[in-house]
Amino acid sequence: MNDPLAHVRDLFDLDDDVVYLDGNSLGAPPRVVAERVREVVREQWGRRLIRGWSEGWWEAPERIGNRIGRLLGAAPGQVLVADSTSVNLFKALMAAVRNTDRAEIVVDAGTFPSDGYVARSVAELTGLALRPAPPEDLDLRDTTAVVLLNHVDYRTGRLLDMAELTAQAHAVGAKVVWDLCHSAGVLPIELDALGVDLAVGCTYKFLNGGPGSPAFIYVPRHGQAAFEQPLTGWTGHEVPFAMDPEYRPDPGVSRARVGTPDIISMLALEAALEVWDHVDLRDVRAKGLALTAHFRSLVEGLPGIEVITPADEWRGHQVSLRHPDADRLVERLAERQVIGDHRPPDVLRFGFAPLYNTFDEATRAATTLKELL
Amino acid sequence: MNDPLAHVRDLFDLDDDVVYLDGNSLGAPPRVVAERVREVVREQWGRRLIRGWSEGWWEAPERIGNRIGRLLGAAPGQVLVADSTSVNLFKALMAAVRNTDRAEIVVDAGTFPSDGYVARSVAELTGLALRPAPPEDLDLRDTTAVVLLNHVDYRTGRLLDMAELTAQAHAVGAKVVWDLCHSAGVLPIELDALGVDLAVGCTYKFLNGGPGSPAFIYVPRHGQAAFEQPLTGWTGHEVPFAMDPEYRPDPGVSRARVGTPDIISMLALEAALEVWDHVDLRDVRAKGLALTAHFRSLVEGLPGIEVITPADEWRGHQVSLRHPDADRLVERLAERQVIGDHRPPDVLRFGFAPLYNTFDEATRAATTLKELL
Repeated sequence: MNDPLAHVRDLFDLDDDVVYLDGNSLGAPPRVVAERVREVVREQWGRRLIRGWSEGWWEAPERIGNRIGRLLGAAPGQVLVADSTSVNLFKALMAAVRNTDRAEIVVDAGTFPSDGYVARSVAELTGLALRPAPPEDLDLRDTTAVVLLNHVDYRTGRLLDMAELTAQAHAVGAKVVWDLCHSAGVLPIELDALGVDLAVGCTYKFLNGGPGSPAFIYVPRHGQAAFEQPLTGWTGHEVPFAMDPEYRPDPGVSRARVGTPDIISMLALEAALEVWDHVDLRDVRAKGLALTAHFRSLVEGLPGIEVITPADEWRGHQVSLRHPDADRLVERLAERQVIGDHRPPDVLRFGFAPLYNTFDEATRAATTLKELL
Repeated sequence: MNDPLAHVRDLFDLDDDVVYLDGNSLGAPPRVVAERVREVVREQWGRRLIRGWSEGWWEAPERIGNRIGRLLGAAPGQVLVADSTSVNLFKALMAAVRNTDRAEIVVDAGTFPSDGYVARSVAELTGLALRPAPPEDLDLRDTTAVVLLNHVDYRTGRLLDMAELTAQAHAVGAKVVWDLCHSAGVLPIELDALGVDLAVGCTYKFLNGGPGSPAFIYVPRHGQAAFEQPLTGWTGHEVPFAMDPEYRPDPGVSRARVGTPDIISMLALEAALEVWDHVDLRDVRAKGLALTAHFRSLVEGLPGIEVITPADEWRGHQVSLRHPDADRLVERLAERQVIGDHRPPDVLRFGFAPLYNTFDEATRAATTLKELL
């Protein structure tokens, strides 16, 4: 098949004998990263020592945030790289319900568990109710303070309609927080244009930042003054080095900062993001749909297999299958160098990263699965 | 002077023409780190991909925590590496006051600002009062829920008596949280023996983990069941991959985990900690006292200089000087390759890292300062 991104795979350090279909869990390393982290340690930390902080380290969270913002339809000054997704979600939800007179937080009933745990914690801390609801029937009300939604369902790969659901929330005066973990970098997203209130996401899936690389948070400019979050670490202060005894948050997105940014991982992520300079996001989405359609066509109808990822375009870049032996199948596929993953109890997930996965790989994965069945 | 740690400097990648006296802000890189991070990216992430999580990554926070625990007098299973110091402090204070019927949080009046900001935030969230008090007169009461103290004052270098102050807190039934940022790795600490309730600290100062490397938190075994913190991310769950819709915290220290651990930085830190295999902490403390005494003897009485670090043994491994032109002096010292730092309004800080700083460097720094004055 025609692949406008075929040249991009060469930017990744991937063994050709492995069919890696777990980039929706941990993206593969862009080639540039290994040497870059060594250089950061040896040349920046080693030679510049503390001076590194005034030579590009301090602003890394905002600088790299802007780079990610370009993939999310967010103008500069609104995306910050910091902490983990769960910590950022805590900030986002706490800020969203601060001073509210509304009674409930609504969360996607099939949410990634961590999001649900954090929402529960925020509800308990603030005295609001937590109401899980299916995205197709959120039943938002004038008592809803905020709704938390996963753009792409981690289990099924279903893609939600961000425009429609954001409008639903706003129609009742509620805020919406989007979790972009499974869509950032591979789906067209227009945070600014849709007026999204807050968003968070990780960078180690399709953004290829590395295992556990720092997460991001989006706080739109018009919401920054009201964004008050309880993790009031010194680096979010308006003048961090003044060592002011009173906390005064930075006026901009930097108020979402907490502790000292983790530079080695940050700059590894920054290096990894360079691959996006070589692609058009529309090509990425088109190839993701084509790859998943191709794989789907090969596995549909295999004995015992049920495809649970939507067949229409409301899907992300994974194909999830249900099979009673999902766990063992994933293991046996791995023995044959086809790497997917398993989500209990019975789901096999195959992620297709348009930047490096090929149609041949999709074919090989489907063929191997067929042989095992 | 006799230096039992002279051989250790060779383990660090430091230029000999620089006198680096800011290791209390950012430690210097152990030589092993640069190559290790490259190997983590190329061999672990690159070759093993998602499989890395079951080949040593997942347990890194606990494994590296145990390594740090050995430097803190903490038996295994009680120290976790995660997040930043400020985030860990938030967990610690929130857990310390959970379900309390007491009315106040006491904080060292001269605390590092971030600790004070986080304590203020916790007080606001929980409805407790926040009372700053000088460590020499904490005036703890039966209404005190918890007291937060910095083991070594970041500004003056004063060392607090952990045994005495912990006992003071316990005498009124209060808990104590120690911030060990400026003492971990270079001072004798006996967390278990003193019955400390909770402690946090960073790893990028005397532990040399790298700029913004992940922080640690100490939760003693006897306090783990009651340690409930609101950052309920999935990796702190008892069975993280069960994707349980309800949060059930891990029974041990892992309940302090939040999001996915940042592996590149974690393993850089782990590599950096290998230098401690080559030293005896008693030698480290002895050399730290000798280095700071030597420097002090050379700068005391210089025109316009006031030494504000205690002269007795109640000091950490820094010497802080007050001078009206502190800011400019630090800049001019740096031009002459003597690197200290400045804390507003008028403090010059010189940190002495016993693992790599030499007596000759202390002499050279003092001589350069004298010339500038």
